[in-house]
Amino acid sequence: MPQQVLEKARDELLDYQGSGMSVMEISHRSAIFDDVAERAEASLRRLMPVPDSHAVLFLSGGATSQFSQLPINLASSDRPGAYVVNGAWSKKAYTIANRLGLAHMAASSEAEGFHSAPDRSDWNLDGPYSYLHYVSNETISGVQFAHTPKTELSLAADMSSDILSRPVEVDKYGVIYAGAQKNIGQAGITIVIVRKELLKHLDRKVPDLQSWQIQYEQSSRLNTPPTFAWYMAGLVFEWIEAQGGVASMAELNQAKAKLFYDFLDTSGFYVNDIPAGFRSHMNIPFKLMDESLHGRFVAEADAAGLSGLKGHRSVGGMRASLYNAMPIAGVEALIEFMTAFERRAG
Amino acid sequence: MPQQVLEKARDELLDYQGSGMSVMEISHRSAIFDDVAERAEASLRRLMPVPDSHAVLFLSGGATSQFSQLPINLASSDRPGAYVVNGAWSKKAYTIANRLGLAHMAASSEAEGFHSAPDRSDWNLDGPYSYLHYVSNETISGVQFAHTPKTELSLAADMSSDILSRPVEVDKYGVIYAGAQKNIGQAGITIVIVRKELLKHLDRKVPDLQSWQIQYEQSSRLNTPPTFAWYMAGLVFEWIEAQGGVASMAELNQAKAKLFYDFLDTSGFYVNDIPAGFRSHMNIPFKLMDESLHGRFVAEADAAGLSGLKGHRSVGGMRASLYNAMPIAGVEALIEFMTAFERRAG
Repeated sequence: MPQQVLEKARDELLDYQGSGMSVMEISHRSAIFDDVAERAEASLRRLMPVPDSHAVLFLSGGATSQFSQLPINLASSDRPGAYVVNGAWSKKAYTIANRLGLAHMAASSEAEGFHSAPDRSDWNLDGPYSYLHYVSNETISGVQFAHTPKTELSLAADMSSDILSRPVEVDKYGVIYAGAQKNIGQAGITIVIVRKELLKHLDRKVPDLQSWQIQYEQSSRLNTPPTFAWYMAGLVFEWIEAQGGVASMAELNQAKAKLFYDFLDTSGFYVNDIPAGFRSHMNIPFKLMDESLHGRFVAEADAAGLSGLKGHRSVGGMRASLYNAMPIAGVEALIEFMTAFERRAG
Repeated sequence: MPQQVLEKARDELLDYQGSGMSVMEISHRSAIFDDVAERAEASLRRLMPVPDSHAVLFLSGGATSQFSQLPINLASSDRPGAYVVNGAWSKKAYTIANRLGLAHMAASSEAEGFHSAPDRSDWNLDGPYSYLHYVSNETISGVQFAHTPKTELSLAADMSSDILSRPVEVDKYGVIYAGAQKNIGQAGITIVIVRKELLKHLDRKVPDLQSWQIQYEQSSRLNTPPTFAWYMAGLVFEWIEAQGGVASMAELNQAKAKLFYDFLDTSGFYVNDIPAGFRSHMNIPFKLMDESLHGRFVAEADAAGLSGLKGHRSVGGMRASLYNAMPIAGVEALIEFMTAFERRAG
């Protein structure tokens, strides 16, 4: 999280804007919370930007909840969702939709170890599908789509780990959703941006709590929403605006990623093996050529205050996450540590 | 929320216990968060107390999510849940379970305007039921069960609005659940206390995210949980322990409620019409004998800094909520305002 956002949250934690109350204590049906909610949505709409054609929902839970809500709301057994699988998260999204009988596997790069996305020409999209789902950035393997996929289908994207890190043409999407804990803020809330037209055409009975249409009608307040997480999201949106918006973030993120990939690629000690066109700007997995040094690397990095470098347990190795809140100095410090480690241990 | 809890959260918002990170930034799979999570559970276990026979889950969302998770996890069409309906929340719990084909209405006091709970002798419990569900405190009508209902069935109780406000014999229950936003902390997390024996006997396929058994096996971390809300819950539990525990809370809550009911009952200007045996110690609805004064009362109370007194939109009138965090001075200030208002307007 950006330091300034945490400082602002701290400073008004006991008294939100002179109300004498913490945001945690404010009723989700009060005028004060209406203001918190509307400010957050307005800031997000300016940032992306989100056109009027699309609704913005703030829903309880993480992106995993949307893995079932997406097909329940938009697909049917006659018109399942089509899924491109290029990593652990897109596989999970497919698996959950498939268990509901609402998924078609359009393509998968699992056989190649999720080292890239499946070739666009190999996607099997013959048939009536409700949407084409993909995960824009796979955090575990460090594979990111460089561009919006071209398709006639309505696009549905999980952007949990790269939303607001680069410009996105929202108008090209039926649905964009993102759990908050990577680039937005606090775990426990998920943003869903959905074309209003799609909500209108729902013809099946979706349970109230899972219904995007009902949450839209109720301004995402069918029941008590995670109010404090919503407020924190708003603070982060306003912070990004103050930094110059998504274009500035993208420029910074590109510079951070270039710095780190250049370092890895010129090193004979560290390696990242994702092909250039699919390399993530957010999560950069890497290994030491001598894998027996991994344990020592993680321990010494932790001791140096560089935590969270251990790769996901399913793939091992290391992973540097360069979300929006990470300044370029953070990447420089990491490279400095890695250079010194190589000198010591190499 | 207790002032001291908010102060502690503020003081460590940027640096949790020397980690250099905010709790909001800590991975839910890190050793630091393990500590946050275990401390919260241990404190709750001491407080209630929760015996080893019962699991404690910290789940995303509000109690409303449990209205469907309870029947999905524990009931079947052959053995539905039995529901006692004595207010808006228990009616909603019944309605959601009933839509799933998993509910039996054992008794309802709706015809009497939810002014009390249905007579125990009128509960229809003939049949094989998976559990008996009730809501221990109905916030809108201000009706509370004074005692644990007697039954051979496994008890399932929504205690969202009175958990930790008075002693409860957890061992008498199959399930106790509570959304956090009343007596525990921040909206977005729900506590589920469930007898482990019940989890073992599940024979149906419950979707992973909704499965109590899977969440139990995964220490409530199947996916990213609302980590900060979990941390805040822990702070509130430790605050209650520091106040002397649930017994002290109950004594204070009883004193606050007695003070307020005595004031209402000796007044010819204000009235609460719930029979003594069902009066809530948490939420006390009241009306002015002259209902035309309601608007003026709310406006003047707001201006005097006494906010949140407007009754629920479905019943009108006023409502004083005396949750754990409300000190007795808060009730005294309210009575003082109400006495002065009567003098001005009466």
